[in-house]
Amino acid sequence: VSGRIEPRTLKGFPDTMPASALARASVVRTATGVFESFGYAPIDTPALEYAEILRGKGGAETDKQMFEFDDAGGRRVAMRFDLTVPLARFVAEHQNELVFPFRRYHVGAVWRGERPQKGRVREFVQCDADLVGAVGPAADAEALAVFCAAYEAIGIGEFEIRVNDRRILDAVLGGLGLRDRAVVVLRAVDKWDKVGADGVRKELVAGGVAEGAADGVLRLSEAAGATNEETLGRLAGLAGPDGAASVAALRETLDLAAAAGAAPRRFRVDPLLARGLDYYTGVVMEAGLPAMRDLGSVGSGGRYDDLAGLYTNTRLPGVGISLGLYRIVVALEEAGRLPKAAADVLVTHPEAGGPRPALALAAEIRAAGLSAEVFPEPRKHGAQMRYADRKGIRFVVTLDPDGTAQVKDLRSGDAFHSPASALPSSLRNR
Amino acid sequence: VSGRIEPRTLKGFPDTMPASALARASVVRTATGVFESFGYAPIDTPALEYAEILRGKGGAETDKQMFEFDDAGGRRVAMRFDLTVPLARFVAEHQNELVFPFRRYHVGAVWRGERPQKGRVREFVQCDADLVGAVGPAADAEALAVFCAAYEAIGIGEFEIRVNDRRILDAVLGGLGLRDRAVVVLRAVDKWDKVGADGVRKELVAGGVAEGAADGVLRLSEAAGATNEETLGRLAGLAGPDGAASVAALRETLDLAAAAGAAPRRFRVDPLLARGLDYYTGVVMEAGLPAMRDLGSVGSGGRYDDLAGLYTNTRLPGVGISLGLYRIVVALEEAGRLPKAAADVLVTHPEAGGPRPALALAAEIRAAGLSAEVFPEPRKHGAQMRYADRKGIRFVVTLDPDGTAQVKDLRSGDAFHSPASALPSSLRNR
Repeated sequence: VSGRIEPRTLKGFPDTMPASALARASVVRTATGVFESFGYAPIDTPALEYAEILRGKGGAETDKQMFEFDDAGGRRVAMRFDLTVPLARFVAEHQNELVFPFRRYHVGAVWRGERPQKGRVREFVQCDADLVGAVGPAADAEALAVFCAAYEAIGIGEFEIRVNDRRILDAVLGGLGLRDRAVVVLRAVDKWDKVGADGVRKELVAGGVAEGAADGVLRLSEAAGATNEETLGRLAGLAGPDGAASVAALRETLDLAAAAGAAPRRFRVDPLLARGLDYYTGVVMEAGLPAMRDLGSVGSGGRYDDLAGLYTNTRLPGVGISLGLYRIVVALEEAGRLPKAAADVLVTHPEAGGPRPALALAAEIRAAGLSAEVFPEPRKHGAQMRYADRKGIRFVVTLDPDGTAQVKDLRSGDAFHSPASALPSSLRNR
Repeated sequence: VSGRIEPRTLKGFPDTMPASALARASVVRTATGVFESFGYAPIDTPALEYAEILRGKGGAETDKQMFEFDDAGGRRVAMRFDLTVPLARFVAEHQNELVFPFRRYHVGAVWRGERPQKGRVREFVQCDADLVGAVGPAADAEALAVFCAAYEAIGIGEFEIRVNDRRILDAVLGGLGLRDRAVVVLRAVDKWDKVGADGVRKELVAGGVAEGAADGVLRLSEAAGATNEETLGRLAGLAGPDGAASVAALRETLDLAAAAGAAPRRFRVDPLLARGLDYYTGVVMEAGLPAMRDLGSVGSGGRYDDLAGLYTNTRLPGVGISLGLYRIVVALEEAGRLPKAAADVLVTHPEAGGPRPALALAAEIRAAGLSAEVFPEPRKHGAQMRYADRKGIRFVVTLDPDGTAQVKDLRSGDAFHSPASALPSSLRNR
């Protein structure tokens, strides 16, 4: 073994094995098809950028997590840690070439040097879609409709999209004299699911919120009604005159999302939903699976006021969504809906005699729309059967010299035979 | 502008704009569909690995080009510079989990710190498929068939795959007493297209090859006949008894590739084709476009004896192909075959009145299989028309209050109208 290098990967940088890679590729294919159907086009940005650009205004948690180094030319460079900062830089740099409103999607890896914990990785693929340079309920409704259509098309099963508007929250907080405590309040409220009402109240008071105001914040939890209309009605009461327009806007956004094809039952107005504290300024959304609460969010999004203020004087508001690819794949796996990372059919290689007829038959099976491989070497029949079984291939086909195809269905255990010429269509019909 | 950061990218790290990104995504979608139909499944490997693993035996040109740095934990890490070294590490590390013969494809970015020249980039996406752990003509024929099927499916137009076998070249060189000068000879021969016979001869002699042997190498050029059968016959003569089996194997490989569905006219046996000097050991292939000779190779591949010898004692021969995504996109662009990075239809937002009917109509158009966007804000009709025109959207649809859809076909200039309910199918039929 002398001279050999031990094959290993860095902590937090796992390989993606075929089954997961195929599932992710399949989800990406479906999601990007949905994005394109709404007029979104892909872009890509470099993995490496000037560190000062990715760092932006600096001081964020993500700065400490960036993979940064000096390149051979002495430039301070860093690997992107999300797709949002690169989008901001992209639209600022190319604003004269792009047509606004600008719809783009972006699927790409990002890197964060977090301490690797169970399930935490330092490299992961993000899948974002944004509509930049448009405001108003039609734009917000489009984001909701695209978000909903993506989960429908992926076939993730029962899902729910929680929706809120940050301006309603802000109005309620303003009424309680907490407008300049919004960060403390929203951070506490964001933990509702984890620590409950008492925990949130404790954190509020510990954070310097008066007891009366803390109770006012807690009343927000009682605003969640049986229907969205009920919730919106209660929010209108809590938000007062300042928030009335925002409540009306959220109502209109939901109505327009339904017109744009999203099933209204997918949406639930959640008065406590805040998301990205420093970032979102209007509608916010988060998708979850009622049957898999522990999984957490499988995607989120929202409206922001000013995407690229660090890089341009042009004010670019927008609304975007981000699909949680890894959790979506986990959900599909748990629901038994993962695509199979193996061909449908193995045509065996004869132990003696050439593989010509086997190769030709596999080509015909592929032409009929199934995937088919030929075992690439002469090997004992039993070994080829074990190979198909280990890989999860369903049909094993062996050609007799007289042109009869002997088929073994490894899923059902059935065996049958057919003239080779009739085989492709008979396999497809199973 | 004070406080703003100038938006810019690193040299050699360009953004990918929507039209190119969509073209690349579309080519990848098609190619991976072909790979999957032959039983190949995707994998992914990390962008960052231990530098010593990517460096391998060291000393290669690529070492100097690696982006390397110390991570926060003091580990020497590097960004992958190809997908082959990671594949070798992957199969060595996971050999007990994988089922061999192992078919995998991999689409991913790689990074090389080359001096950026015109068109040279430091980050690019590779698209590889390999069959690892199999030898023989059926495996080689499969690589040729997958390679050919990918270009057919991509619709790149007329293409040609040059094919050779390194063992034939080796036999000819052995007959000329040049077996241990193979590197010098093959490097010279690889420049045939650029410098011609005289240039190659000069380089051979300058490299220490005797004049008589140099003439023998040049006779190889005369082996290219009008048909592959003719070329193979001449090669059998030149290669002598040592090379007869290799010539027969190449003949069988081509015959089996045809059985596997590849059109024989796509292949041309090229006695001078060598490819990756230190890497390939058997069949080699390279795809080009006769109508775009200047573009160079749009993909290549070949057989190797020992993929992962640096990381494992298990000998893993294989055969692989790599599609040149960027040149394929250039070729599609030049042939006017790029997909459009814009929706098929823009439904305008009414200047007054809500966008509800427009959103609903767009949803119906999408359900009919077209892509449709709604202008997301109320804006003057002329501004919305200019937007559609700049983006390259073909149909602009405006709904009258009575439910009539006014359509402008920006490609033909035609205008027509239709009841909204009949519009989706009438648009699809154009």
